[in-house]
Amino acid sequence: MKVFETIPAFLEWRKNLKPQATVGFVPTMGALHLGHQSLLARARVENEITVLSIFVNPTQFNNAQDFDTYPKTWEEDLRIAAQSGVDAILAPHDPKSIYPDDFHYQLSENQFSKELCGEFRPGHFTGVLTVVLKLFQIVRPVRAYFGEKDHQQLSLIEGMVNAFFMDVKVIPCETLREPSGLALSSRNLRLSPEQKALAPKIYQTLLQVQEPETAKEVLSSLGFKVEYLVDRNDGKKRRRYVAAWLGDVRLIDNVEL
Amino acid sequence: MKVFETIPAFLEWRKNLKPQATVGFVPTMGALHLGHQSLLARARVENEITVLSIFVNPTQFNNAQDFDTYPKTWEEDLRIAAQSGVDAILAPHDPKSIYPDDFHYQLSENQFSKELCGEFRPGHFTGVLTVVLKLFQIVRPVRAYFGEKDHQQLSLIEGMVNAFFMDVKVIPCETLREPSGLALSSRNLRLSPEQKALAPKIYQTLLQVQEPETAKEVLSSLGFKVEYLVDRNDGKKRRRYVAAWLGDVRLIDNVEL
Repeated sequence: MKVFETIPAFLEWRKNLKPQATVGFVPTMGALHLGHQSLLARARVENEITVLSIFVNPTQFNNAQDFDTYPKTWEEDLRIAAQSGVDAILAPHDPKSIYPDDFHYQLSENQFSKELCGEFRPGHFTGVLTVVLKLFQIVRPVRAYFGEKDHQQLSLIEGMVNAFFMDVKVIPCETLREPSGLALSSRNLRLSPEQKALAPKIYQTLLQVQEPETAKEVLSSLGFKVEYLVDRNDGKKRRRYVAAWLGDVRLIDNVEL
Repeated sequence: MKVFETIPAFLEWRKNLKPQATVGFVPTMGALHLGHQSLLARARVENEITVLSIFVNPTQFNNAQDFDTYPKTWEEDLRIAAQSGVDAILAPHDPKSIYPDDFHYQLSENQFSKELCGEFRPGHFTGVLTVVLKLFQIVRPVRAYFGEKDHQQLSLIEGMVNAFFMDVKVIPCETLREPSGLALSSRNLRLSPEQKALAPKIYQTLLQVQEPETAKEVLSSLGFKVEYLVDRNDGKKRRRYVAAWLGDVRLIDNVEL
């Protein structure tokens, strides 16, 4: 397994792959968990080469504290990557190497990106789309794997790929959950034992309470600070989306209705 | 010479080129002149395959009248393309085929794009960068050719390519001029004989008058409506930029100082 901490080194390696080689790509912010592992496993099966990126992208954090406290588990990430059969890790430690332009060039969406998470995290999706465009150009994957846990992100990336005729197939991957129903997320590492015990109520309430307004009240009464809990059409299906805080940890989830 | 009026047809052809084939790309809005021909000639020499796009991109026009009156010389364009040894023309007639997203996804720059032409044509460079990103993804060129006449555009496209690590080499091509010094431009077709006789004063004044403020006054006194005439560092060299109207035709030019 190759580990590249600079983009030129990665590009040199990438250039020397056979032009026809199928590259599967899993972009992450590290703190890998079983959800990421399932993406990597699928990438490994479907492609000749599997590339993992680990980059905590500063431009998608609207909240400095969330950025500073984002979990970092580098040694464990390396172990998981090796075990998952990853061929190359792109892990630029210095944000300047991904943003030589100081973020002057931006890829934005002006409709769906303003809703749900976008309403509460101004600029978040511009940061996401911008970094994903950069990573796609660097890695040049045939397939890229994204978890449905971040369903709005997934939809916006699919939209970007279609809008710009990008030669990459976006593969949505089902949300992995703990037996309790809690969606796997790197941010779960930041939950206290009490919060961890309460967190599964998000998923349970999404499923069990019929009306979104009522579901929101249920979560609020349990101590969640709910940003939004709404039913929306995601283009193909009805879907229920939620974002809620437990203490200073922000959790999101969604289910197909 | 293949002519593709839809993107799927072009993509099918593109897919069947050898993966290693070097593709040279000249994106245009049609109304081809000798300036475009020189770009095509260079693309032809330096690459195995030459692709020309002809698309009057609505999103880069901030002025509806300018868009409506933009010269269209389709039959003549085909003749020039064939004569220039173009292998394929991508000419989507329907803007919706380039903007399936209704322009919801945009590539913007937030610094230099706001100055010079960007100050007087709000949104212009967002339209340019967005369409160039789309065309680059569709055509996947090794080299793309841009005229220095639109020097700010050229700089911004170079900046985009660097910011997003795009696997394409941007080739700047010297401005072609009439013997009078007038920079070749599709919009010259819209000048009356009297305006055409006056237009070379732009270039002459850029070169002959030392102070930009004085040069601006000279052009104004000759009947130009000058938007800007300024000296700027383009990152590497001192350059003098001008935009001026003759009647309802907007002309731009620039010279290295």
